[in-house]
Amino acid sequence: MSSIVLDHGSGGLASRMLLEELIYDKLGNPQLHHGGDSAVLAAVSPGHKLAFTTDSYVVDPLFFPGGDIGKLAVHGTINDLAMTGAIPKALSLALILEEGFTFDELSQVLDSIREACQDADVAIVTGDTKVVPKGKGDKIFINTSGIGEISSLAHLDTARIEEGDAVLLSGTLGDHGITIMTRQAGLSVDGDLRSDTMPLHRLTAELLKTLAEDVHVLRDPTRGGVATVINELLENSGLQLEVDAQSLPVRPQVKAACELLGLEPLYLANEGKAIAIVKGERAEEALSIMRSLPEGKDAVILGFLEKEEKKRTAHLILRTTTGGQRLVAPLQGMALPRIC
Amino acid sequence: MSSIVLDHGSGGLASRMLLEELIYDKLGNPQLHHGGDSAVLAAVSPGHKLAFTTDSYVVDPLFFPGGDIGKLAVHGTINDLAMTGAIPKALSLALILEEGFTFDELSQVLDSIREACQDADVAIVTGDTKVVPKGKGDKIFINTSGIGEISSLAHLDTARIEEGDAVLLSGTLGDHGITIMTRQAGLSVDGDLRSDTMPLHRLTAELLKTLAEDVHVLRDPTRGGVATVINELLENSGLQLEVDAQSLPVRPQVKAACELLGLEPLYLANEGKAIAIVKGERAEEALSIMRSLPEGKDAVILGFLEKEEKKRTAHLILRTTTGGQRLVAPLQGMALPRIC
Repeated sequence: MSSIVLDHGSGGLASRMLLEELIYDKLGNPQLHHGGDSAVLAAVSPGHKLAFTTDSYVVDPLFFPGGDIGKLAVHGTINDLAMTGAIPKALSLALILEEGFTFDELSQVLDSIREACQDADVAIVTGDTKVVPKGKGDKIFINTSGIGEISSLAHLDTARIEEGDAVLLSGTLGDHGITIMTRQAGLSVDGDLRSDTMPLHRLTAELLKTLAEDVHVLRDPTRGGVATVINELLENSGLQLEVDAQSLPVRPQVKAACELLGLEPLYLANEGKAIAIVKGERAEEALSIMRSLPEGKDAVILGFLEKEEKKRTAHLILRTTTGGQRLVAPLQGMALPRIC
Repeated sequence: MSSIVLDHGSGGLASRMLLEELIYDKLGNPQLHHGGDSAVLAAVSPGHKLAFTTDSYVVDPLFFPGGDIGKLAVHGTINDLAMTGAIPKALSLALILEEGFTFDELSQVLDSIREACQDADVAIVTGDTKVVPKGKGDKIFINTSGIGEISSLAHLDTARIEEGDAVLLSGTLGDHGITIMTRQAGLSVDGDLRSDTMPLHRLTAELLKTLAEDVHVLRDPTRGGVATVINELLENSGLQLEVDAQSLPVRPQVKAACELLGLEPLYLANEGKAIAIVKGERAEEALSIMRSLPEGKDAVILGFLEKEEKKRTAHLILRTTTGGQRLVAPLQGMALPRIC
């Protein structure tokens, strides 16, 4: 047998063989074998809060330059935990497999999940596998949920955002979004487009270690991109962020592809970038912490928050090369299926 | 607009409107509005362990007598937590919606989720919504993950199963499985077949409160049914369970449908039943605790564990009316897609 059949979802012998001969083996975590449906975790450190998050991944194609659905599923959930100031403690993994999905591709995805977990020092501790008939799914959908322990140094709250705060971005814009979109469109674009998928919990932990409560908010600009996240964070704050268009970090090949397709990099999904809003006077310190790590080597200070000139729905303003200003609203209509 | 479009998965304005005007509203939990991708939970009580579980739900049909995919998704994950001796603390909810899925049906599912959560006194604290193109999914797939706090009274471990232990079942066999299978087959069967989907955390908490460490194992016999779970629990134990076929609690209409379809109720999925293995001398006490609760009113003692007569792959033995014995192995091949 070289592909998934309905019987793999029955809960009987075939389900068990799939688990024991492929999934457990590939994931290599003995805790998964214990037989119950829940994992039992040691208590969190006294007084610490927990972070809890979930994401389903339906990205198409499954494999793309820079990553695949497995890496994305591990990194995405780690990053959601990291943005609360948490150290990821445990992940769950739930697979929805389409009848006919090949063991080869499933193995590749599982290998990738194991590697991403090892690299990030977090384990899959509980899981589930369902099978749907051919034509009722699409190869594989993955849900990962995660639990993290929130650092006592973290005092993250959008209510703490204030005038003068610095807004930092940990690297280049849109690498994941443009990579997936050009693949989906079947476009061959010059230059090396690659997803930026990567875990950010070390970067956020370093920021908190040094800046502690001077980090006001952390957020990862995934679907909707940097523009949507900044607008959401500043909603009802009475504050705005003016950014020099020239200072936005965009790789030349991403810029070229965006121009070709008429896309705005500020709306593209990122899978390995953090936005940090920190007390203004600590901006340079935050920048050097980010730049000292591989995942933050292209970090920039986007700007400093200032009082809104007038009440508007857009809180992000681009200062163009000709000296003009352009309001960047949250992403409106853009049918972007299966970007993550 | 009356159904899901791709834009609802973009992360932009349409995504936000779906969340704010339907999902948040239906689920009615203010904690969901906070904007971040993770929930922040108060620390667990000092010294307590955590239970963590995940399940995806792909049941077909979405609505069936006794429940729907929403109820199932809440109850199933609560029950997985309950079987570790945990009180459920928080659930996550991740939706994979197919383009064209109607708002009406989505609303019904969300209403059902809210009611099931209220009834079980547990909240959805974090979530995710993805959209896939028409023909790449099937209306709605739901993942719920859950966190629970494990009672300090719980000392549950398959290694604690021993000779003389009593095996209890909290109610009738196969109600969920047969309800879904007859619907999938388009069979109209006499009598009122209804899923048994219900939360079991109160029943398990009551058992632990009185019997404490004399409860050796709790398990919910979902996919694969009672026969598969008992065989798995007794694997390598050197023990067997002999059960009087007459004493198995099966509703007459379930029995009739099983005879018609040639099915064994011991293999059918249950969604509101617990198997408890307890110290033999506390069997009657455990039985009256179960029967004192609505969810355990049909509870029975299946039997007491005894030494295997000889090494076999099946550990469950049915004593038939004619005095014969029949070995019941774990479920082997049975293509049962989308039973939960």
